[in-house]
Amino acid sequence: MSRKLLEFVQDITRLLAGESDEARILARGRERLAGLVAVDDWLPDAFAQPHPQYYQQYLLYADPLDRFSIVSFVWGPGQRTPVHDHLTWGLVGCLRGRERETAYERQADGSFRATDTRLLLPGQTAAVSPSIGDVHQVANDLADQPSVSIHVYGLNIGRVQRHVFDPDSGAAKSFVSGYASSVVPNLWA
Amino acid sequence: MSRKLLEFVQDITRLLAGESDEARILARGRERLAGLVAVDDWLPDAFAQPHPQYYQQYLLYADPLDRFSIVSFVWGPGQRTPVHDHLTWGLVGCLRGRERETAYERQADGSFRATDTRLLLPGQTAAVSPSIGDVHQVANDLADQPSVSIHVYGLNIGRVQRHVFDPDSGAAKSFVSGYASSVVPNLWA
Ligand SMILES: [Fe+3]
Ligand SMILES: [Fe+3]
Ligand SMILES: [Mg+2]
Repeated sequence: MSRKLLEFVQDITRLLAGESDEARILARGRERLAGLVAVDDWLPDAFAQPHPQYYQQYLLYADPLDRFSIVSFVWGPGQRTPVHDHLTWGLVGCLRGRERETAYERQADGSFRATDTRLLLPGQTAAVSPSIGDVHQVANDLADQPSVSIHVYGLNIGRVQRHVFDPDSGAAKSFVSGYASSVVPNLWA
Repeated sequence: MSRKLLEFVQDITRLLAGESDEARILARGRERLAGLVAVDDWLPDAFAQPHPQYYQQYLLYADPLDRFSIVSFVWGPGQRTPVHDHLTWGLVGCLRGRERETAYERQADGSFRATDTRLLLPGQTAAVSPSIGDVHQVANDLADQPSVSIHVYGLNIGRVQRHVFDPDSGAAKSFVSGYASSVVPNLWA
């Protein structure tokens, strides 16, 4: 195991122990995440495995008191999330492949409209939160190979109840995303 | 994954955030560890696998800032540790089988003498530290089946340099014990 993930966990632990302002957490965390995804040489293969049908969400680390979590998202060719929210701050850093992130805003009639689409290349980052825009869809923009990104959230993202949306009707459905594996990396192995 | 290990990690995290007195950490931690090992229904099989030749040390959780670690020790029939130190406080709770713990004290001539031998049955606990006696040997007391115990230490026990001793001569050899697996349990799976 590379030291990179351990050092990232340590930095986020220290950042959150000393900072409660969301804008500063997002700014500092995003710089730090950009550093983590700058070079694709540290993620163990077991946490980068695509599934033939579903995108995979591998927990890499979670704070035991739910202050943050770090997840590896793995999309097979053409796979994508539904339109969804997070109910906390979140950071996305593309590690491998190419991702397409589409931001959504709720309209007066209750529906959701796509307001912005960005491509994320390896090393690039994005942020979400209820205060800056919390509803989006993320897709693998490649038709022939997996994409992998590293996400950081201000709670245990796989265990909380949040929502997927039908953008046209605005209808919300509660869901708990869970995790694809019963193990996480040993940061000291 | 049972909630028991998660709740133990949370309790130790909170205990160490609010308490720095070693005697109180050992007393409260030991009560809590006794609760964890009272019923053997929560340790995933992957972290209870004996090795035909060597006792195994599986990391279950480590605090990212090295404030504590939790380890599953698995002894095959007849296996045992060398005589060793820890250089921090430590707690041992027997989960399965039967363990024999022998405490050692350094003598005026530099050698180590066994001062106390205890059998640990499932649910029973022991403590070590530089202030109460830090040198011991732990063995599987069963000739025909594995024993498993859960250990908690005041640092990342698999990554620090500590010592094994030849009890007769008192000669010390530095070692770093490491961990038997590159993954740890996902406490939220
Ligand atoms: Fe998202
Ligand atoms: Fe020991
Ligand atoms: Mg922590």
